[in-house]
Amino acid sequence: MASKGDRPEDTSALAAVAGNGLLDRRALLRRGLGATGAAAGAVLAPRPALAIPLQDAPWSLQNGAPTPSYQVPSKYASFVARTNANPDNLPKVTQARTPHQLMDGMITPNGLHFTIVHAGIPDIDPAIHRLVIHGLVKRPLSFTVEDLHRYPMVSRITFIECGGNSAPLFSPEPVQADVQALHGLVSCAEWTGVKLSTLLEETGVDPRAKWFVAEGADAPHLDRSIPLSKAYDDAIIALYQNGEPLMPGNGFPMRLLLPGYEGNTNIKFLRRIELTVEPTMSYYESQVYTEPLPNGKAYRFFLVSEVKSFITWPSFGQKLTGPGLYEISGLAYSGDGAISKVMVSADGGKSWGKAALQDPVMSKAFTRFRMPWLWDGGPAILQSRAYDEKGNMQPTRAQFVKARGEFDKVPDVKAFQNHHFNAIVSWAVDSNGGVKHAYA
Amino acid sequence: MASKGDRPEDTSALAAVAGNGLLDRRALLRRGLGATGAAAGAVLAPRPALAIPLQDAPWSLQNGAPTPSYQVPSKYASFVARTNANPDNLPKVTQARTPHQLMDGMITPNGLHFTIVHAGIPDIDPAIHRLVIHGLVKRPLSFTVEDLHRYPMVSRITFIECGGNSAPLFSPEPVQADVQALHGLVSCAEWTGVKLSTLLEETGVDPRAKWFVAEGADAPHLDRSIPLSKAYDDAIIALYQNGEPLMPGNGFPMRLLLPGYEGNTNIKFLRRIELTVEPTMSYYESQVYTEPLPNGKAYRFFLVSEVKSFITWPSFGQKLTGPGLYEISGLAYSGDGAISKVMVSADGGKSWGKAALQDPVMSKAFTRFRMPWLWDGGPAILQSRAYDEKGNMQPTRAQFVKARGEFDKVPDVKAFQNHHFNAIVSWAVDSNGGVKHAYA
Repeated sequence: MASKGDRPEDTSALAAVAGNGLLDRRALLRRGLGATGAAAGAVLAPRPALAIPLQDAPWSLQNGAPTPSYQVPSKYASFVARTNANPDNLPKVTQARTPHQLMDGMITPNGLHFTIVHAGIPDIDPAIHRLVIHGLVKRPLSFTVEDLHRYPMVSRITFIECGGNSAPLFSPEPVQADVQALHGLVSCAEWTGVKLSTLLEETGVDPRAKWFVAEGADAPHLDRSIPLSKAYDDAIIALYQNGEPLMPGNGFPMRLLLPGYEGNTNIKFLRRIELTVEPTMSYYESQVYTEPLPNGKAYRFFLVSEVKSFITWPSFGQKLTGPGLYEISGLAYSGDGAISKVMVSADGGKSWGKAALQDPVMSKAFTRFRMPWLWDGGPAILQSRAYDEKGNMQPTRAQFVKARGEFDKVPDVKAFQNHHFNAIVSWAVDSNGGVKHAYA
Repeated sequence: MASKGDRPEDTSALAAVAGNGLLDRRALLRRGLGATGAAAGAVLAPRPALAIPLQDAPWSLQNGAPTPSYQVPSKYASFVARTNANPDNLPKVTQARTPHQLMDGMITPNGLHFTIVHAGIPDIDPAIHRLVIHGLVKRPLSFTVEDLHRYPMVSRITFIECGGNSAPLFSPEPVQADVQALHGLVSCAEWTGVKLSTLLEETGVDPRAKWFVAEGADAPHLDRSIPLSKAYDDAIIALYQNGEPLMPGNGFPMRLLLPGYEGNTNIKFLRRIELTVEPTMSYYESQVYTEPLPNGKAYRFFLVSEVKSFITWPSFGQKLTGPGLYEISGLAYSGDGAISKVMVSADGGKSWGKAALQDPVMSKAFTRFRMPWLWDGGPAILQSRAYDEKGNMQPTRAQFVKARGEFDKVPDVKAFQNHHFNAIVSWAVDSNGGVKHAYA
C-alpha cells in the first residue's frame, strides 16, 4: 500500500516521543509534513511530475454501469474479502475472517463482518421464526420479529470477537501469516434491537433465576449459559446491523448481542432463552471454552474479551518502500469498557509513545489508533499496547503464556489452550522494509 | 412493522412530557413498560401463548448455505433496497434512494448508501487513476491511490445529503410517498482518507488562491467550486467507506468529502483539484444549484445542509395496529455541527416533548432520536424539530416556503426552487392507524 522510497529525512526539526523514530502526531500535523524533509515543503511521497492535459481514460468517455438496488464493491476491490476455512461447506465449523490489513476506520462493513457458523448458514423465514422466553419466568412468551418491532429500540456500536481469535499466537514460534489470518475473527458494527431486560419485564422473572441459556435455530442448536445480570446490564436482541436487517451469517433474523462477551455467546438465529438457577453446562462451555491452565486449574465462563490491540499497518505481508515518514495504524478494544490509551513502540518495547485515538472512542467498540513514524531504514520491532478505562492493560506475550500456557508445537490448532489471547503483538521490520510476525 | 392492537391503556402512572400521549422516556424505562398497562406487568405486544416444544423448522434440521467471501442480505430482506429512478440506465441522472423507513440506527450500510450518478457508474481501474492538484499551487502534483496511502489518515462519521433531498415538499399539496421517496437522498457512513490540507502542504499554495474546483473522472466530468477555507477545515480525499474501499457508486477509488456540504460538491471519482482566484461558475453552480427566491434574488454557493430531521417510524405507508405504546423514532442532522436536541410533537406542533438522542451524537453525523408515545386511537399529527449546537433550528414549512417559494403545481419536479428543503415534516395518523404525509 506504500509508495516508492523517499530520500532519507532530516529529523532535527521533529518532536520524538519514543525511540527509533516515533513522532509527536499533533506537533507534526501542526508543523506540517514538510518538517520531515530536508527543506520545508519537501514532498513526502514521490510521484510523477504533473502531465496535463491528462489523456481521458476509457471510463471518462462513455456512459457507465447501471445502478444496482444493493451495491457491492468494485471488481478492482474484490481482493478485499473474507477468507473461508470450509470452502466445500462440509457440515462443520466455517470461519470467515475480516481483512483488517486492507481496511481502515472503526466500522466493519456488513459484507466483511467476520462470521462463524457450525453447520452452514440457515435460510430463515422471518415470518415463521419465533423467539421463546421460558423457564423461570412468570409468563412464558413467544415473540415474532414483528412483535419485537413494537418495543423501544436501542443501538450500540460494539465489537464481537471469537474467543479463538489470535489463537495462532499460542504457538511457540510466531506463525508467519497476515492480520486477517491471525486476528480476523473480530469485527465492529452498529447493532440495533430490543433490550433483553425489556422483554423480561414482559415475561416477569422468578427470583430463583440466576442464569439463562440462549439457543440458536440453526441445525447445531448452539447454546450458551449467561449470568442473568448481563440481561439487566446491556444484552440486546439485535435485529439490525449497521442500519439494515442482520446479515444471514450474523444471525438473521435476530441474534443475542452481549457487548464485550466472547462471540460464541452472542447466539445467532436466536430461538429460545430459558431462565435457570444454574448454568446448563452445554458443549461450548463444558468442552470447548473451558481452558485448562498450566497450574492444573481451568477457566469456566471466562466470558469477557479482555483489552487488546494489534497494528494493521504496517503488518505481515506489507512492505515499506524506503526510509521516511509512515503512519502506524491499528485497532484497540476492550470488553470491559472504553480504550483509555494506546502506547506504540518501534524498538520492541524499550520505549513507548502515546498514539492518537480517533473519534469516536466508545465503550466496547473498536478504537482506531494512529502514530507517525520516521523509519530510518534499519530493523524495527513495532508493538501496540492498549489500556482500558478500568485500568486493564495488555500483558506481554511472555507474561501471557506463563499464565495461560502455549501449544506444544507449531501450529497445533487442536490444542485446547487456544482462547482469549490478548497479549502484545509484534511486527518485525527488516532493512528491506519487509514485515514479519515476531515474538519480542 | 407493528403487531396487532393492544387493549387501551391506563395512563395514570405515566409521566407525560407533551400533549396527545408523548411520554418521558427515562421515567418510562426506569419504571418498566408494564406501567403502561392496566396492571403492573401487563403484556405490551400481544403474541401467541407459548407452545413448547416448538416443531423444528426446516432450517433447524439440515446443513445450511455456504459462507460467501462478501456477504449480502437474506432474500427475505431483499425488499430493504434502494429505488432506482433510471432503471434503463439512460445517459442521464440516476438517483438510488436509501430506505430509511425500513432501517434503524445511525450508520447507513454501504449496500444501501444513496447514490446519484449523471452518466452511469464508471468502472475505474485504481492502478491507472490519478488525482492531480494544480492551478495556483507552487508544485502541481499527481497522486496515485498508492501514493495517498502513504499519508496520515483520518476517519469521520458524517452524512452526505443531496441538495435535492426532500424536494417533493416544495409541492403546494403534500405528496403521498414514503420516507425513501421523500427523504432518501441522505445517508451516513464512516469515511477514511487523507486530509486535503495535507496534500496542499505538499503542493504549496499561491497566496492568490481563494477557491478550488474539483472535477470527477466519470464522463460528465462533474465539477464544483469550493472556498479554499473548506480545504483547511475538514475536507478529506476519502478512500474508505465504513472500513472498506469506496463503493463504485460512491466514488471508487477516491472522492472529495466535504462534511456538511451538499452532496453534489463531494466530487466522486475525483481526478482533479485546481486552485483558483474565483469560483469557476460550473453548470451545477450556475444553472442547477442557484435558487431564485421569491424576492427576486438568488442563492449562490448555498453549500451547507442546514439542520433537519424526519420521523422514520411511524411514517407514510406504515400502520399502527391499535391504541397503545409505540416508539417514535427518526433521524436528525446538521451540516453546521452536532445536534443539540430534537423536540417531538404528537399534536401538530401545539406542544413538544424532548426526544432521547442516541449515542454517538457527533458533529455533521446522523443522530437517531427516540420518543415513547401512548397512542389513544385518535387522530394525531407527528412532527420532529431538530436544533444544532450553533443555535439553528428547523423552520416550519410555512416559514420555509415563504422565504424560499414553492412549486406551482403538484408535483413539478422540473421546478427550480427544489433544493435544501429542511423544514419540519408532518405525518398524520388517522383513527385506523394509517399514516399520511401532511402539512401542518
